[in-house]
Amino acid sequence: MLISIGDELLHGRVVDTNAAWLSGRLEALGFRVHEIRGISDVEEQLVELLAEVTPKADLCVATGGLGPTADDRTRAAVARAAGVEHEFDERSWTEIQRWFEKRERPLDPSNKTQAFLPAGARSLPNHLGTAPGFLATIGSCRFAALPGVPSEMRGMTAEALEPVLGEVFGDRLRPLAHRTLWVLGPSEAELGSILEDRMVPGGPVEVGVTAKEGLLVVRVAAQSQAEVVQPIDASREEAERLALEVADDIVGRLGPMLLYRGEDSPSTALVHRLLRSKQTLASAESCTGGMLAAAWTDVPGSSAVFPGGFVVYSNEQKTVSLGVPRELLDAHGAVSELVAQSMAEGARRETGADFALATSGIAGPRGGSDEKPVGTVCFGLATPFGSRAWTRHFPNLGRDFVRQRSVWEATATMLRELGPG
Amino acid sequence: MLISIGDELLHGRVVDTNAAWLSGRLEALGFRVHEIRGISDVEEQLVELLAEVTPKADLCVATGGLGPTADDRTRAAVARAAGVEHEFDERSWTEIQRWFEKRERPLDPSNKTQAFLPAGARSLPNHLGTAPGFLATIGSCRFAALPGVPSEMRGMTAEALEPVLGEVFGDRLRPLAHRTLWVLGPSEAELGSILEDRMVPGGPVEVGVTAKEGLLVVRVAAQSQAEVVQPIDASREEAERLALEVADDIVGRLGPMLLYRGEDSPSTALVHRLLRSKQTLASAESCTGGMLAAAWTDVPGSSAVFPGGFVVYSNEQKTVSLGVPRELLDAHGAVSELVAQSMAEGARRETGADFALATSGIAGPRGGSDEKPVGTVCFGLATPFGSRAWTRHFPNLGRDFVRQRSVWEATATMLRELGPG
Repeated sequence: MLISIGDELLHGRVVDTNAAWLSGRLEALGFRVHEIRGISDVEEQLVELLAEVTPKADLCVATGGLGPTADDRTRAAVARAAGVEHEFDERSWTEIQRWFEKRERPLDPSNKTQAFLPAGARSLPNHLGTAPGFLATIGSCRFAALPGVPSEMRGMTAEALEPVLGEVFGDRLRPLAHRTLWVLGPSEAELGSILEDRMVPGGPVEVGVTAKEGLLVVRVAAQSQAEVVQPIDASREEAERLALEVADDIVGRLGPMLLYRGEDSPSTALVHRLLRSKQTLASAESCTGGMLAAAWTDVPGSSAVFPGGFVVYSNEQKTVSLGVPRELLDAHGAVSELVAQSMAEGARRETGADFALATSGIAGPRGGSDEKPVGTVCFGLATPFGSRAWTRHFPNLGRDFVRQRSVWEATATMLRELGPG
Repeated sequence: MLISIGDELLHGRVVDTNAAWLSGRLEALGFRVHEIRGISDVEEQLVELLAEVTPKADLCVATGGLGPTADDRTRAAVARAAGVEHEFDERSWTEIQRWFEKRERPLDPSNKTQAFLPAGARSLPNHLGTAPGFLATIGSCRFAALPGVPSEMRGMTAEALEPVLGEVFGDRLRPLAHRTLWVLGPSEAELGSILEDRMVPGGPVEVGVTAKEGLLVVRVAAQSQAEVVQPIDASREEAERLALEVADDIVGRLGPMLLYRGEDSPSTALVHRLLRSKQTLASAESCTGGMLAAAWTDVPGSSAVFPGGFVVYSNEQKTVSLGVPRELLDAHGAVSELVAQSMAEGARRETGADFALATSGIAGPRGGSDEKPVGTVCFGLATPFGSRAWTRHFPNLGRDFVRQRSVWEATATMLRELGPG
């Protein structure tokens, strides 16, 4: 059971990324996440929720509500649900003070509230922020409180929570093994038909399909089904074997529709592929406006394979930065295969990269015409062996969709161009 | 009550952005979202959840589980919860067929399952995909089923669901009014102290603070407290008055810590500000690797104010694209104020923009030193009146944090440079 606490989630101002990240981590450890709940900051609501869910779960992890302000109620609510006092924890207070000293920042009196924990709880140190977390016991359920700030929550989970859960739950855990396959081409329904017999719920191996702006992600999840308690390593091994077997079968069915297999995102897969072959790549972007460069440079180590890129929104800039002939722009328009190809060649020449990829399209909401409706995107690819261009007509599902779909198309093309290596 | 359905959410592969978006839309209509729940694709779990929550809510909105594949169980589960048959809806089937014809895509037999609806439900057309949604009644609760694909869900909410909710709920709705204030400078605790008396829960106006990579967002939400049923317009007016009054008071307390007020994101505010004054802006990015350009060009209309940008990851590229003198790079290193300033000047010169902003820093995880630890970022700003540079030492809370924090810093600086205008 995961609980995300904060009015900002219910008011729609903040997207809850914590629940997804925590689900992945907890499943890898062998927990099955049965439900995710997002609730407000109101203390009463959390107390009621805990009374309802703690009898049904072995573990409950909550994020948020640990800050120093008056709307941070997790500490108080858990103490009430566990029927214990709310105690001042000297060790946590020392750590909070040290955190401020180290950073030479003024300690606000309100930070002292962050050192109060439910009696008997074990504090979880926070190296990235002021709010310590804690692990408490409510009836037969363990309850972990983590901060809502994603970076702090992630650090605390890896450094403090996971080791403690290993101690507490030990051999009762049955790790889940995953295999992920990335598919570009078929519709979700077509892919569903191909995998129909594999997608029946229940059983040791579950197969699910998710669509992300036209990119389909097939996920295979397997868990040991042994009836007796096993050592955690034996469970993990059996799960890995099951997942691999099913993934291999699906790869055989997909044929050329398979983009690649692996847990990494397409950008990470591309950067690692370039690192392996010691090749470099540059970008020349119009409609994606920097998203392609941002996606690729999001991967640590990308500086070795990505010398740089160009965002050329105006026609003028396409000519000045990338040498796209003005006549080409006048004759064919910025959204044309010849211009995209010329942009790619220009970026390759200017950066000296082995490859360069260019995008020029109409992301909307305005700018479309009958001939070139919103969703029309031209791509150019320059390689050591020559250059080429092609056009895609993406459905007009909004500016974000067209831009993100273009990033997938460009990244997928580069992955195919480079081959498995 | 919002329900997000899909194994992919619980397995941590997909972040649920639908719940946040729907919360905002439903609150604006006057619904108070009490809880968000994320559950698996298993039909039984949804049936149980509906039995539990429908007696307590006026409206329940679920996303996901409407696709054509075997793991899409929403239609069947709602029919069971409502105690009705699962009927073939001729109108939905005609629309699905038309969707495929229009796009000249092959209709898979599995798409026919998407035309089955719980008996008595009203179908909600989907102009952006194959899955129709529906509005059903379970006991005293209205239940809306929307697709999980964000673009389809958003389109259907605006075009089909909201008008129907207006009809069904009418004057019982009490719209919520919002004011948003953006703050850069104080810590969350410092801001909490300043607003302490305003952050007491309960009452007609609620004030909440959210931190996003160092940017603080203060949100004021007000709702009419009239005890009698009011026309929806009178409720909306009173809520607006209350929200404005409190927002004005907070603005007075914040002084220069206030970055700006408004519902728009910082990037949107910046693009609109530039559009108003007919000025242009270019980017020169090292550590942010295209994120700055991507954030700015995410805003529709940005092409009029953003001629282009440069991603210059390698030293070579800083010299070739932006004319940063090699001696400067050798003497001071790429992460230095003089280089950032030279990058900004180069981008301004190359694009002819009025302003150019440059970033050069160490986002990590590697590349830090004692003198320039991870989190050190130099910024350069070139304007029609000269150029300048400065350095920030952001906490090392991960590559994403440092990069995103740098985008806020750059965008906030530009907003301040331009003034309210």
